[in-house]
Amino acid sequence: MSVVENGAGAGIRAGERSVTLPDGFDAGVYFIGHIETPWTTRADCPRRGDMTDGPLCTLRIDPRWAQALTGLSGFRHVQVLYWMDEARRDLVLQVPRGGAAAGTFALRSPVRPNPIASSVAALVAVEGTSVTVRGLDCRTGTPLIDLKPARTPAEGAPASPPEAGS
Amino acid sequence: MSVVENGAGAGIRAGERSVTLPDGFDAGVYFIGHIETPWTTRADCPRRGDMTDGPLCTLRIDPRWAQALTGLSGFRHVQVLYWMDEARRDLVLQVPRGGAAAGTFALRSPVRPNPIASSVAALVAVEGTSVTVRGLDCRTGTPLIDLKPARTPAEGAPASPPEAGS
Repeated sequence: MSVVENGAGAGIRAGERSVTLPDGFDAGVYFIGHIETPWTTRADCPRRGDMTDGPLCTLRIDPRWAQALTGLSGFRHVQVLYWMDEARRDLVLQVPRGGAAAGTFALRSPVRPNPIASSVAALVAVEGTSVTVRGLDCRTGTPLIDLKPARTPAEGAPASPPEAGS
Repeated sequence: MSVVENGAGAGIRAGERSVTLPDGFDAGVYFIGHIETPWTTRADCPRRGDMTDGPLCTLRIDPRWAQALTGLSGFRHVQVLYWMDEARRDLVLQVPRGGAAAGTFALRSPVRPNPIASSVAALVAVEGTSVTVRGLDCRTGTPLIDLKPARTPAEGAPASPPEAGS
């Protein structure tokens, strides 16, 4: 294992640490579509989306997978997995802005060996291959890799029913 | 898009439907370790783990990523992402045992374009590169691809503190 310490790596902050990535990948991912949001750069994105608030976002699913949406509209919440394709993958210690150094697996930062984000969003509508939701906070154009119903708290759904009128 | 209907694909059930997979992958995944559980085959696995109950399971992290665990022990719950490497990836309609046909994205079945499972587990201990948890339900040897703290209900943590004595 080769370790780069304290700023010797490109774009690394003091206190951060990178490792040499493995020689090859162990498995492959298909992008199944992309996410449309109001935010065009990472800097524009809100710090954290809220499941029941925030602007409408749209999941555009590749037509190949259209039938896989059958029955999704019956759920109130969906877990959305997406690929944070702009993030480096080799940091093991990170220094968040205004924070102390922490291990990558103790953070939800996009910077991680496999840059997979998981968010639970409120499902608004399913029309053709477009799925409208509230509660995401990623850059528009972000590759989508999975969606699944979130039915229980362990899957990210709220423990109690949403308030009336929501 | 090529579609195989009603049992024309290998191992497909009546009512299920497969599609031709894309020619290549869009991104690559590193296995960062593996999961040790009491279950040696998929058939042995419980239908669904419970976050605060069930046997101890151990995440064995590759030494390359050891420092990425720094600070993880301060959390009570972790979101675990793992790769369901025995599942086929080409079904868009599935017929669960004893159920009606449903779209892949309306199910949490391992069979999906990207066989990524997400579970929230109770964190028991972090010792070296071993992370002990309760609440997983996968086969032993399952490849691990990510872990992150689960702090809020939207991330899968319980909305209320666990009962006294747990």
